[in-house]
Amino acid sequence: MFENKDKTPLSELGEFGLIDHLTQHFKPQRSSSIKSIGDDAAILDFKENQTLVSTDLLIEGVHFDLSYVPLKHLGYKAVMVNLSDIYAMNAEPTQITVSIAVSNRFGLEALEELYKGIHLACKKYKVDLIGGDTTSSQTGLIISVTAIGKAAHGKAIKRDTANEGDLVVVTGDIGAAYLGLQILEREKAVFKVNPNSQPDLDSYSYLLERQLKPEARNDIKMLLEALEVHPTSMIDISDGLSSEILHICKQSCKGVYIYEDKIPLDPSVIATCEEFKLDSTTVALSGGEDYELLFTIKQEDYPKIKANPNLTVIGHMAPENEGVHLITRAGTKIGLKAQGWNHMES
Amino acid sequence: MFENKDKTPLSELGEFGLIDHLTQHFKPQRSSSIKSIGDDAAILDFKENQTLVSTDLLIEGVHFDLSYVPLKHLGYKAVMVNLSDIYAMNAEPTQITVSIAVSNRFGLEALEELYKGIHLACKKYKVDLIGGDTTSSQTGLIISVTAIGKAAHGKAIKRDTANEGDLVVVTGDIGAAYLGLQILEREKAVFKVNPNSQPDLDSYSYLLERQLKPEARNDIKMLLEALEVHPTSMIDISDGLSSEILHICKQSCKGVYIYEDKIPLDPSVIATCEEFKLDSTTVALSGGEDYELLFTIKQEDYPKIKANPNLTVIGHMAPENEGVHLITRAGTKIGLKAQGWNHMES
Repeated sequence: MFENKDKTPLSELGEFGLIDHLTQHFKPQRSSSIKSIGDDAAILDFKENQTLVSTDLLIEGVHFDLSYVPLKHLGYKAVMVNLSDIYAMNAEPTQITVSIAVSNRFGLEALEELYKGIHLACKKYKVDLIGGDTTSSQTGLIISVTAIGKAAHGKAIKRDTANEGDLVVVTGDIGAAYLGLQILEREKAVFKVNPNSQPDLDSYSYLLERQLKPEARNDIKMLLEALEVHPTSMIDISDGLSSEILHICKQSCKGVYIYEDKIPLDPSVIATCEEFKLDSTTVALSGGEDYELLFTIKQEDYPKIKANPNLTVIGHMAPENEGVHLITRAGTKIGLKAQGWNHMES
Repeated sequence: MFENKDKTPLSELGEFGLIDHLTQHFKPQRSSSIKSIGDDAAILDFKENQTLVSTDLLIEGVHFDLSYVPLKHLGYKAVMVNLSDIYAMNAEPTQITVSIAVSNRFGLEALEELYKGIHLACKKYKVDLIGGDTTSSQTGLIISVTAIGKAAHGKAIKRDTANEGDLVVVTGDIGAAYLGLQILEREKAVFKVNPNSQPDLDSYSYLLERQLKPEARNDIKMLLEALEVHPTSMIDISDGLSSEILHICKQSCKGVYIYEDKIPLDPSVIATCEEFKLDSTTVALSGGEDYELLFTIKQEDYPKIKANPNLTVIGHMAPENEGVHLITRAGTKIGLKAQGWNHMES
C-alpha cells in the first residue's frame, strides 16, 4: 500500500495547505452550493425543498482493513455508504462533507489516493464536497462523512409508514458484498503463509466489486416515478436484509412474512456459498453492505413493478401480533432475527 | 474518570439500543426538525432560509486529554466548537449530528456523561440532535459533530469580503482558554509526582472555565442587528487570533494592521502570563480555542460600536501590498504570523 512507500510528510503542507491540495480538483456542480470549502461553514440554498442529513463514521480496523482495501476504493465506498442513506429516503443527495484523521503512517500520496476515490464518487453521483476537517490521529485512519440531500416537500419516505398487506420489495440482488469480504479475508490469510502466491480471483469479480466498489441505487427514485409507484416505507440494506426488515416492522408496528425462495441471489453468490459451505439465505439475511434498497408498496401497485428486473417482491407486511417470519423453501415458518454486522460488539 | 469504575459493557445494549438509550431525553425544539433520529437520514425544512453546514472531528490524545477533561464538559465543548462555526457566519445553528467511536475502555456510564454535556448544550443553545452514528474504535474516543444552521437569504457573512480601511473587531477577550490548558497540564504533571496534592485552582477559575466549558457567541448576531451594524467579513477564533486574521486577509486579498495595545485581555490572563513567564500578546495571537468572533466593519459604523463592552477594535484592513502587521506597544511594525495550534503537526 501507499503507506509503505517513500512519502511526503503531511506536516510539510500544514492543515490548510493539505485541505487546499486535496480539494483543488473538486468543482461545485450543484446550484444549491452557494459557498463551498474555505469558510467556517458552507452555505446551501434548497429553496422550497426539504433538507436531508445523514452521517457515518468509518474506523480503520473496525470497518475496513487497508491490507486489502485500496485507498481509492475506500474513498469511493465511504461516499457511497452515505449517499445510500439519502437515496433510502427517496431523496437526492446533493452535497457531502468529509472529515479525516490520519496517523503519521500516512503520507500525502496516500491521502491523494483516498481523495481520488471521493472525487470519482462526487463526479459520478453529482454531489459537491462542501467542507470537512483534517486532523491527526494516534492510530490509523478515521473517515467521517455527512451527506446532505433534498426532497420535494412531503416526498421523503420514512421507515415507520408501512401498512398491513403491503408488499416488501428489494432492489438488485443481495449477499454478494459479504462473500466478497470472505474472499478477501481468505486471500489475506493465504498471503500471510505464502507471499508469492498469485491468486486467481476472476471468478469472484462480481463479489469483489460489490464489496470494494459498491454503487448506491441512484436509479430507483426515477424508476419508481416512471412506474408511478410511491413506496409506503423505505430503508437501505447496510446491515443485512433481516436487520433492515426488522427496522421497518418495529418502527411501523407491523409484522412480516418473507419467503426464502423469493430472495434475489446472483448465481455467483450461490456457487461461492457452496464453495465456502455457507447457507446462502443466511448470507443474504445477515451479510450486509449490499447498499440495495428495501421498500414496501401497496398491493395494487404490484402489476406496475412485476416485470422489472431491478425489483423483486420477497414478502408482505402483516399485523404486528402475527410477528416477523421467514417462510422457508420447505414451507416452515421460522422467526426472523437480526444478525447483521454489529460494530458495537467487536 | 468513569472509564475506571464498574461499568456496563456497551455490547449489552447493541448499537441501536445504545443510540435509543443515549438519545431518549433529546426532544426536538425546532419546527424545522421534521424527522429526527431513527431513520436513514433526518428531514429538515428551512423554508425560504439558506442552510449552513459545518463539521469537526475531535480525537482523544490529539484534541482532548481525558485525564483532566470531564466527559460531560467534553460533550458540551464538542457542540460549542461546531455551533461557533455557524455563529461565525452570522447565522443561527438549529440542528447537530453527533457520531462517536469508543473503545471497550468505555462503559455505558461514560457515554451517559458525554451525552449529558451534549444535551445541556442542545437545550441551552436551542439546537436539536437529529442523527449520528455509534461504533467501536480500537483505541480511545472519537467525536464527530456536524452543525446545521439557517440564515436569511444573503445574510450569511463570509471571510473573503473585507474591504480596505475596514475596522477589525474582536468580541470578548482572548488568550484565556490557552492558559487554562497550561494550568491543567501543570496540575497533571504535579499529580503524577504527588497524587495526594490538593491543588488550589480558585484564582484560575475564569481561565479553566474558558478551556473546559467555552460558550459560543450566540449573542453577537442579535447585538449587531440591534446596533444596526452589518459586518463586512466574519470568522471565529478557534486557532488563535493571528491565524484567523490571516485567513480574512488571504481570502479577501487585503493587508492588515493590528495594534498590540488594543488586544483585549482579561486581568487574569495578564497575571497568569507573568506567573508562567509567557508573553501575553503571543498567547493572545497564537493560543486558540477562545471561540470569540472576529469581524470587520465599515469605518462609518465605528460610533455604533465604540461604547459596547463586548466589542473591541484592534486594527484596520489595508491594501494587500502593504502586508500583514502587528504594531507593538513600542510602535515597532512586525510581521504577523500564524502560529495557532496545528493538529497536523503533532
